[in-house]
Amino acid sequence: MKRFIILGSTGSIGRSSLDVIGSNPDHFTAVGLACGSSVKKMCEQVLRFKPAAVSMDSPEAASEVRSFVGTKTKVYEGIDGMNEMIRELDVDGVINGLVGSVGMLPTLTALENGKDVLLANKETMVMAGRIVMETANRFGRRIVPIDSEMSAIYQCMKGEDRKSVKRLILTASGGPFIDVPLEDLYDVTVGQALNHPTWDMGAKNTIDSATLMNKGLEVIEASFLFGIPGDKIDVTIHRSSIAHSFVEYLDGSLLCQVSKPDMRLAIQYAMTDPERLPSLYGGLDFSAPFSLTFEPPDTKRFPCLLFAFEALKKGGTAPAAINGANEQVVKAFESGKILFMDIPEIIKRVVDGHDFISEPTIEELLETDIKTKRVMDEIVSLMRE
Amino acid sequence: MKRFIILGSTGSIGRSSLDVIGSNPDHFTAVGLACGSSVKKMCEQVLRFKPAAVSMDSPEAASEVRSFVGTKTKVYEGIDGMNEMIRELDVDGVINGLVGSVGMLPTLTALENGKDVLLANKETMVMAGRIVMETANRFGRRIVPIDSEMSAIYQCMKGEDRKSVKRLILTASGGPFIDVPLEDLYDVTVGQALNHPTWDMGAKNTIDSATLMNKGLEVIEASFLFGIPGDKIDVTIHRSSIAHSFVEYLDGSLLCQVSKPDMRLAIQYAMTDPERLPSLYGGLDFSAPFSLTFEPPDTKRFPCLLFAFEALKKGGTAPAAINGANEQVVKAFESGKILFMDIPEIIKRVVDGHDFISEPTIEELLETDIKTKRVMDEIVSLMRE
Repeated sequence: MKRFIILGSTGSIGRSSLDVIGSNPDHFTAVGLACGSSVKKMCEQVLRFKPAAVSMDSPEAASEVRSFVGTKTKVYEGIDGMNEMIRELDVDGVINGLVGSVGMLPTLTALENGKDVLLANKETMVMAGRIVMETANRFGRRIVPIDSEMSAIYQCMKGEDRKSVKRLILTASGGPFIDVPLEDLYDVTVGQALNHPTWDMGAKNTIDSATLMNKGLEVIEASFLFGIPGDKIDVTIHRSSIAHSFVEYLDGSLLCQVSKPDMRLAIQYAMTDPERLPSLYGGLDFSAPFSLTFEPPDTKRFPCLLFAFEALKKGGTAPAAINGANEQVVKAFESGKILFMDIPEIIKRVVDGHDFISEPTIEELLETDIKTKRVMDEIVSLMRE
Repeated sequence: MKRFIILGSTGSIGRSSLDVIGSNPDHFTAVGLACGSSVKKMCEQVLRFKPAAVSMDSPEAASEVRSFVGTKTKVYEGIDGMNEMIRELDVDGVINGLVGSVGMLPTLTALENGKDVLLANKETMVMAGRIVMETANRFGRRIVPIDSEMSAIYQCMKGEDRKSVKRLILTASGGPFIDVPLEDLYDVTVGQALNHPTWDMGAKNTIDSATLMNKGLEVIEASFLFGIPGDKIDVTIHRSSIAHSFVEYLDGSLLCQVSKPDMRLAIQYAMTDPERLPSLYGGLDFSAPFSLTFEPPDTKRFPCLLFAFEALKKGGTAPAAINGANEQVVKAFESGKILFMDIPEIIKRVVDGHDFISEPTIEELLETDIKTKRVMDEIVSLMRE
């Protein structure tokens, strides 16, 4: 029986993780859950999964949950509480399904306390990839990705020497605007951006897919996670999200992981790795004709992808800056304060203008995140005037 | 420096293997070569690769080669001579590029004498898969496939537990007649059958591709090589020969190996496994759009595929019988004695009527091969009257 903590348990990754656990009660158990302030959803999860502990971000939510669960479940509160829960529970892994830069510190807490991290929170790797990987190595822990593209690369590199890798090719669905001409991209709405063709994800990741920033952040994530420089990473548009990424080896052989798009497959794989368990997800039907198409991305219409490569090449605080800028600009777009094509323009301005540090500490990376977001807010409010 | 013997050195696989060796003189060397009676080609290969020994099937050819190479290269002759060369030379592996049932005994000789086998000769596995695998296990040797589909599966199973495999899906180009209606298949010519759309192979494998028997034999080969029963093996038509086969795992995740079709890639991989060396083969161009298509095979037009599954299920001497029958019927088609659609019909008759043995010895398998071929010749000559 493998024991897990799930951070962001009421979000998209969290619910999928609990779905996998619920389908495999003989193999997995959820001993700790954490979320922001969704009291009702958390109480439902406590009733169903009976974790030893939960953590709520807001003190009010914690107090409400506490009065509901009584003494059977310990209730932590705030960021400190969540970190304490990670330290105290005896688990096989921490599933990090948090969204945004808030996911970084719990990843480090888990690693430093001898816990493997099953990572969906790509911002962790984008902001502080080098430090996170060093921490994992120092404490002898694994980071197993549960993002479908990262999981694909991880599976394709199983049993292979990293030094044999020539290139990673990340697949991108292209998002809802893949066929929209540049001039029409200025007028697309939030509703259209949230209508993803193949994946059912949370709002932030869905809008990131529409700008291709999602793929840009994954390029940075993959670079740190697998130790492959940016000039050895390519992106290909693959609309049906069946092929989840390629690894090309020195000899010209490429391995690719394919399956019907379902986040639960990558989640379950991370939970069973290096073994596998039967599941109802994935698969592929060869009894009817089908085709897989690939085409190069158009960085004129989707410049965010290019900016991510530039930030990765620049290194230092640049990836944290682009991540923070993007996180905040997506909120501005979601709330209707800016247009879709303002997104890349503002991001570029904020990243180019940020106080660059080439070898930042964790504190400096957090500082970069906060400052970038503040500058972003200022620019957005100036634009509104 | 890895040292190899190449059986069938003047054939398609042999020449490709020597091409790989010639391109990597710091890593590989050919210390032994064997072929049938191509004196001129063998002498050219001796001049270029300076092997310690060669073997010629016919005594006349051996004597001609002997007079050419003088005392620098030892010249063996006949099947016994080839087996003696395999036993005597100190090598890292024996590349078996022989065509047909003649490839079986040298495979066993190599394994029994502590040599890994790099196997292109699928007839070895089709005829005597169980015995060959038992021999490899008993002597602690590896059989590394250098057929592109088998190599793909081998690469996709690297680092994975065989027990996690749910299904193998072998890709087939479909051959030159994939779009020819049933009624027109009776009139196709040998020249048309030899015109393969994607692969440059010898005549026997090319005609086997046109009947899909090639894929049928690979299904049997894969079953023995990877220990997967026939009901867990599927075939999909993939016209461009870019995706070289899939492994589906229990959890619904599939791994696929892809690359431009070039036999040298699988050959080099077998020579370097578990490592990889840079090569000029394979690769894939993501800078322009492309698509990979898959469709189910039509076993009405290509019943040989079905017959192979049936022979695999029946076991015993049935795979050896279908292999022998096919080998001989292809020769009859090549020499214009029978029509294309006679091929499956005669094969079925011969296999159904053969003296079935459920647990055959090697001698009985060889006997099955010889008898099947004799019966096949009789049927063909009766048809001609």
